[in-house]
Amino acid sequence: MKRTLGTCYYPEHWTEDIWAEDAARMADLGLTWVRIGEFAWSRLEPAPGDLQFGWLDRAFDTLAQTGLKIVLGTPTATPPRWMLERHPDMLAVDAQGRARGFGSRRHYCFSHDGYRAEAVRITALLAERYGRHPALGAWQTDNEYGCHDTVLSYSEAARRAFRDWLAQRYQSPDALNRAWGNVFWSMEYRDFDEIELPNLTVTEPNPAHAMDFRRFSSDQVARFNAAQVETIRAHSDAPISHNYMGRITEFDHFATGRQLDIATWDSYPLGFLEDRLEEADAHKRRYARQGDPDFQAFHHDLYRSVGHGRWWVMEQQPGPVNWAPHNPAPLPGMIRFWTWEAFAHGAEAVCYFRWRQAPFAQEQMHAGLLRPDHAEAVGHAEVAAVAADLTAAQDVETTKAPVALIFDYQAAWSWDVQPQGRGCDYFRLVFEVYRGLRKLGLSIDILPPDTRDFTDYDLILAPGLDMPPPDLIPAIAVSGAQALFGPRFGSKTDAFAIPVPLPPAISGLDAVVARVETLRPDMPVPVTGGGAITLWREHLEGGAQVLDRDADGLPVLLRAGSLHYLGGWPDPTYLARVLTRLAGAAGVLVRELPDDIRIRQSGPTLFIFNHGPDPVEFDGTRIPPAGFLRR
Amino acid sequence: MKRTLGTCYYPEHWTEDIWAEDAARMADLGLTWVRIGEFAWSRLEPAPGDLQFGWLDRAFDTLAQTGLKIVLGTPTATPPRWMLERHPDMLAVDAQGRARGFGSRRHYCFSHDGYRAEAVRITALLAERYGRHPALGAWQTDNEYGCHDTVLSYSEAARRAFRDWLAQRYQSPDALNRAWGNVFWSMEYRDFDEIELPNLTVTEPNPAHAMDFRRFSSDQVARFNAAQVETIRAHSDAPISHNYMGRITEFDHFATGRQLDIATWDSYPLGFLEDRLEEADAHKRRYARQGDPDFQAFHHDLYRSVGHGRWWVMEQQPGPVNWAPHNPAPLPGMIRFWTWEAFAHGAEAVCYFRWRQAPFAQEQMHAGLLRPDHAEAVGHAEVAAVAADLTAAQDVETTKAPVALIFDYQAAWSWDVQPQGRGCDYFRLVFEVYRGLRKLGLSIDILPPDTRDFTDYDLILAPGLDMPPPDLIPAIAVSGAQALFGPRFGSKTDAFAIPVPLPPAISGLDAVVARVETLRPDMPVPVTGGGAITLWREHLEGGAQVLDRDADGLPVLLRAGSLHYLGGWPDPTYLARVLTRLAGAAGVLVRELPDDIRIRQSGPTLFIFNHGPDPVEFDGTRIPPAGFLRR
Amino acid sequence: MKRTLGTCYYPEHWTEDIWAEDAARMADLGLTWVRIGEFAWSRLEPAPGDLQFGWLDRAFDTLAQTGLKIVLGTPTATPPRWMLERHPDMLAVDAQGRARGFGSRRHYCFSHDGYRAEAVRITALLAERYGRHPALGAWQTDNEYGCHDTVLSYSEAARRAFRDWLAQRYQSPDALNRAWGNVFWSMEYRDFDEIELPNLTVTEPNPAHAMDFRRFSSDQVARFNAAQVETIRAHSDAPISHNYMGRITEFDHFATGRQLDIATWDSYPLGFLEDRLEEADAHKRRYARQGDPDFQAFHHDLYRSVGHGRWWVMEQQPGPVNWAPHNPAPLPGMIRFWTWEAFAHGAEAVCYFRWRQAPFAQEQMHAGLLRPDHAEAVGHAEVAAVAADLTAAQDVETTKAPVALIFDYQAAWSWDVQPQGRGCDYFRLVFEVYRGLRKLGLSIDILPPDTRDFTDYDLILAPGLDMPPPDLIPAIAVSGAQALFGPRFGSKTDAFAIPVPLPPAISGLDAVVARVETLRPDMPVPVTGGGAITLWREHLEGGAQVLDRDADGLPVLLRAGSLHYLGGWPDPTYLARVLTRLAGAAGVLVRELPDDIRIRQSGPTLFIFNHGPDPVEFDGTRIPPAGFLRR
Repeated sequence: MKRTLGTCYYPEHWTEDIWAEDAARMADLGLTWVRIGEFAWSRLEPAPGDLQFGWLDRAFDTLAQTGLKIVLGTPTATPPRWMLERHPDMLAVDAQGRARGFGSRRHYCFSHDGYRAEAVRITALLAERYGRHPALGAWQTDNEYGCHDTVLSYSEAARRAFRDWLAQRYQSPDALNRAWGNVFWSMEYRDFDEIELPNLTVTEPNPAHAMDFRRFSSDQVARFNAAQVETIRAHSDAPISHNYMGRITEFDHFATGRQLDIATWDSYPLGFLEDRLEEADAHKRRYARQGDPDFQAFHHDLYRSVGHGRWWVMEQQPGPVNWAPHNPAPLPGMIRFWTWEAFAHGAEAVCYFRWRQAPFAQEQMHAGLLRPDHAEAVGHAEVAAVAADLTAAQDVETTKAPVALIFDYQAAWSWDVQPQGRGCDYFRLVFEVYRGLRKLGLSIDILPPDTRDFTDYDLILAPGLDMPPPDLIPAIAVSGAQALFGPRFGSKTDAFAIPVPLPPAISGLDAVVARVETLRPDMPVPVTGGGAITLWREHLEGGAQVLDRDADGLPVLLRAGSLHYLGGWPDPTYLARVLTRLAGAAGVLVRELPDDIRIRQSGPTLFIFNHGPDPVEFDGTRIPPAGFLRR
Repeated sequence: MKRTLGTCYYPEHWTEDIWAEDAARMADLGLTWVRIGEFAWSRLEPAPGDLQFGWLDRAFDTLAQTGLKIVLGTPTATPPRWMLERHPDMLAVDAQGRARGFGSRRHYCFSHDGYRAEAVRITALLAERYGRHPALGAWQTDNEYGCHDTVLSYSEAARRAFRDWLAQRYQSPDALNRAWGNVFWSMEYRDFDEIELPNLTVTEPNPAHAMDFRRFSSDQVARFNAAQVETIRAHSDAPISHNYMGRITEFDHFATGRQLDIATWDSYPLGFLEDRLEEADAHKRRYARQGDPDFQAFHHDLYRSVGHGRWWVMEQQPGPVNWAPHNPAPLPGMIRFWTWEAFAHGAEAVCYFRWRQAPFAQEQMHAGLLRPDHAEAVGHAEVAAVAADLTAAQDVETTKAPVALIFDYQAAWSWDVQPQGRGCDYFRLVFEVYRGLRKLGLSIDILPPDTRDFTDYDLILAPGLDMPPPDLIPAIAVSGAQALFGPRFGSKTDAFAIPVPLPPAISGLDAVVARVETLRPDMPVPVTGGGAITLWREHLEGGAQVLDRDADGLPVLLRAGSLHYLGGWPDPTYLARVLTRLAGAAGVLVRELPDDIRIRQSGPTLFIFNHGPDPVEFDGTRIPPAGFLRR
Repeated sequence: MKRTLGTCYYPEHWTEDIWAEDAARMADLGLTWVRIGEFAWSRLEPAPGDLQFGWLDRAFDTLAQTGLKIVLGTPTATPPRWMLERHPDMLAVDAQGRARGFGSRRHYCFSHDGYRAEAVRITALLAERYGRHPALGAWQTDNEYGCHDTVLSYSEAARRAFRDWLAQRYQSPDALNRAWGNVFWSMEYRDFDEIELPNLTVTEPNPAHAMDFRRFSSDQVARFNAAQVETIRAHSDAPISHNYMGRITEFDHFATGRQLDIATWDSYPLGFLEDRLEEADAHKRRYARQGDPDFQAFHHDLYRSVGHGRWWVMEQQPGPVNWAPHNPAPLPGMIRFWTWEAFAHGAEAVCYFRWRQAPFAQEQMHAGLLRPDHAEAVGHAEVAAVAADLTAAQDVETTKAPVALIFDYQAAWSWDVQPQGRGCDYFRLVFEVYRGLRKLGLSIDILPPDTRDFTDYDLILAPGLDMPPPDLIPAIAVSGAQALFGPRFGSKTDAFAIPVPLPPAISGLDAVVARVETLRPDMPVPVTGGGAITLWREHLEGGAQVLDRDADGLPVLLRAGSLHYLGGWPDPTYLARVLTRLAGAAGVLVRELPDDIRIRQSGPTLFIFNHGPDPVEFDGTRIPPAGFLRR
């Protein structure tokens, strides 16, 4: 498959007289795609019912004339001000009870039926008008679901919808009371309408209550997205996508992914490094101009799965951004580097956000490929270099990796609802395992928890999976792959209770988690042979084979055939030992890479990336900063 | 007196068919007491007036059949959901103005008359039915007053009650204006109904206003408790208790203690260490599996006083808990260790929370003596060991200590209202003095500020007592004991003003606090001879005998006969010097103990406890971690 | 001019029988001024319309009899409780939407018309009664505008007034939409009444929206002040002042300054050091008893400009205060030191806050010249020493400094609205430049951005001035002074957009800021030759002469004739290099001072101050701590 490039463009931000020149410059640069429209509602419908599609018609035509293909976004992330007069209660409400008002974006509650109908209405109008336009290449629903913490809403609309959702799920208040264990603290309900949203309670609410609210909230996103998808499909055969963000776990991306044709995501490596990682200052300083060595790759692999193999970077950082605590410039070469890293992981297209830096409003300090004065910005030349690369280079194949890592959004919610210890976060754990695999030179597929076909995987990891589907273990066992579970595997029932018999209840593995403790980060428990358990530690009992013990003699790693159970949170050293052992058993070759180096096998091609600020000697070749090799 | 053991049990959490077995296992383990009922309102009265006492009758009978004695809790900490329909305004309101809703526990405002009447109603029903039951051993009112920051409420009910309370106290707005100094900043009121609660002011409210609100709030707790106590006494002769928590200072425990027969408290050493102490990380790491060496002892001694000598541990941590920032497991042996520490300080009974770990709801990660699968948890064997100890060992006598430490809840409020420097906290100061005494091997009685009989005490300390009763000094002086006052002694009038003549106004001591300063923690002022003053420093003037001076030549420690005044917050080194000097003058023997060792003299018996994670040689004996000696 | 002393006195706090003695003691101490009345509304008008001026008449007379001159404050910072019954909606509302209630002070919204009318009414009554009183020396409007974060209010009154203000400014919603760039994210308005205050938006509001709210809020302060000033002028010829605070940037002090005759400020060096500076702990510890070496001087120089040369210290810290995180006592001698520092910078008068420490209400722990028991406090003797100094010493001349530093409140708002990187604060930048100049021994004038006459200045600095008036550069260029601009110079249009052509657009300087990045504080970029750029870094392009480059070879300092542009935030080392270079070019002599020493040239007199806690040898003379020389 031919990899392609694109950009994000806002014709409504500029006078029409420069559209044609912009389009020509895009084409000259070697771009294929241009995304438009996703924030333009106030220009498409300045007043209720006053539809103004003429300018968008002209933008379509102007862009199409140079051969560009259009990704059209539905503008539902930015309802105009007049929408609030029609639906004064459409705003989301934060956990403190404050309405989240007009004046920026994403000012709607996913549970508000009236607003969802408006979103369907504008989507239908766009789909009817542009669904068969020859330049239309793809759709995007809304923009960055969940950004700015917008999944969880404590509005009246959400309250009503949550009660309905609970009534559907449990059918009777008594069933709900039993499932949640509401006898504890006399929290029993006599009617679904007695149930409030789980905010502003005196102390923590029932975790089963909180967990169901998390499931409900995720379902509301899927329902909102589905309404748009169905509307578009009625009028258009173009593939439909959504642009996800980094480390948003409040809704199940696999659920929306099943509705869509392509997954895309918005990759801002420098912003994410500063804003969304637990790493130490030294790490953040070292990678300040390159981004974390694994964060982008993780999301590439995740969204490849969410998109069933079809995925893009819809917004690629092209220079400094405006929203992180600090916003440095990338090292020279990083725009090209990030683009090729995406291709190495199978991206069909990489689009740069944005074509021209807007001199006004919230993102005026966010770089574009052009400066506000229309001159080429620093990133422009790097994109030209990528375009030249694409012409010159062989295409990249995407193949299955030998390693599968299971990622479950539901587990992210349940860990969040009940971390049991500060710092115990599901994404963090899975990401640390992912990083550990990458440091051993492995390429990874990230899979949803409902995966049942594990053919061709040699190594399967399911860290932290506390609510596994009942048929997962058999499916993994039958695959013959070496598999690692734990900590916390199977530790919750669907109703957020501790199962009896006690976890992990892995068939064939004679072990129970007799108790759980969480540890201060400064009191790791060493494991015999090297490394340590930190943060989360389980006391395992039973007759299973013990592969490792800790300094207190307690079992840490158990085994039954190809299945392994890890009873704690491993530090990087011990993690490397565990992964190396399992890879050895699986016949997967590992290689300890230098700190800054990561590799990715894409079909017959091996990509080698230097994420550090210094040159690295690797296999006799010197790789400069922001440099990469293709073999 | 024979010391006894018990547990906390929730028959309503389990099917009736296992109650008998549970009761038998409790008896087999050597338990005497079982506390039940304190969260069961929704099962006792599932709908308003629909009383369902049958199950509780059967639970009483089943437990009684094995000889267990019952502590019955009133369920008023957990009003059922229907209560809110009857009293929609019964919720407490936080300082930010948000109602603290249903969905956990303690969701009521102490000032709400309607809810208090409901609490009396259910208490009366229970007292009438079980007040004379042969198995009833004691009562518990409500549960953990003040837990989850529930004493201070900014509700409409509280506002009305506060105005009435002020009207009673001051009789006229003018009297209040004069007392508070409301002329300052034109804060004068013309009517009690003009007075708001002291939250959400532009900058700090008048401290006299805040102080009266603190007194009022404490009084509301006492009033709420008194209503239950009176109701129970009408129908029962069993002793009445309440289970207090650790480091809750928002209400005067001595005031509720005067209404009750027994004080109990809920001792969670590991949770408290992480959650409620200012200590450095190194200290928290060292004691992570044992708890702070002095925190439990402090509360044992405090509640012995609150209970007029009669006190229990009603809830003893039996393994990891679920609510602290980190929740490690205790060292092996700590359950037995903590139990014996309580007995050494005079506990009549120690009950473990809880019998069986609940697999559902908020506390599902809180250990019990049994696991959720009914198997014995780690703590079970330690309780069996204690039961064996009790059979084998001589009983523990409780005697008066040679040292008295005065603790005044009112001082905690006033320091909180006006700390004058970050870190200046009354509990912290008193606790540091307590720790200093313990490190010198002393046993201590903690006394309320209205104590007048100091017979048999050789050493009396009243650190931080800013609002002493007028007849305290004469009572202490007449006792002949060596006494230490300050800092801040007598520095506030009852109306929260600086008294003139200036403090400390200790008869016979020619000194005034000419000025006060608070210090950054990194700028201690050395005291000649060793140690330093930190955080709080007074500039003393006058002709009193100066025992110590600081590096600037200012007096630090003054003396008039047996009375001493300390003009600052001592660091541990200087504190040890001061305490050693006074103990010497008092003829009390001190002994500098190793860091991890604490001792307690109980009648003729000396208990020696090793709180550290390592063995300690002490007087030629090696005490292992979690170990203790009895001599 | 003869420098004078004074104090702040509250006759309403004391019984009338001691007024005469107080007045006599003030006169004996050598005081000239006594400020009264500014919080006394509830005593002047205990009930609506019930005017009680008798006591104030008597206070005037008593004070006047000893020759004291009175500064009369309007009591509008403390409306009485009854005012809220007349104007229940007069309270300010915080950014979280909570009304900021009665019970302390400054409980009003500047936008409330009803309250402003009340303020005018009481002002008129005072002006009519005392405007021609022979003892009246000056007026003070209100008290410390902006203290306790009271400029920004999100009340309904503010919302209405903001809409009117916007309508005045933009005339049509379309003009506003274009100016703000509201097409971005569909934020367009159809009516001014659709515009909300910029709080509680989902993510950040449009910075143009936030910026206009900041301008509006500042204008409301000016409008409130103007109403009082006009009222007073109708009845009195006495000069009118306001007492500003330290580091309050929410309103434009130059704007209120233009309405007033004298600027005064309230100087609390120790409180400010702890509370309002970004400095490291070591710095705060070193100067804990002296205050920051430059903070007071900065405000002296700033308010000399705000007052057009006429300025006072209205409240001088006389001992420990009550409101900072820690409140230490000043070093002996500091009261005198601070007073003389103010005189060296041109203060006409220094008044001490307060005469006698109040034993009641919020500030009872704030020192006065007298203790609550009427005895002399520590500061009293130091004031007596100053009075003696004044008798003995030659008067201080005030002359223009050779260095001008431009300070623009609007820039403070715009940096605040869009810092782009954590720690990027306008006041901090300007203050660091000011400190850098002082460490080189320079005396400085601080000027408003509308200054056009730069005669006699040799060196002009305008750091961080992002919205310069269009005619500023020509005025500076014509002066011939060496001038330094940047970073961020000219980077915003009046409508808060990036200008095209790109900044800095300094005529004659061929350079554009091609991009901007913000840096973690731990990743400074070294400048060739010494020092580094930190926090904020611009990538400069163009043909201008490059004076310094950074380690990446990027230009840092550019020059065109006498105009220089600095493309980043300099660390102290590099700042010293830049300032030394420019001073050299300007023919201004610099001298690297010891860390603790600062000097101030006042006409022919050179003042040398030792701000450190240790003696310093300077030019052969030993200056003790809290010591200073006059040459």
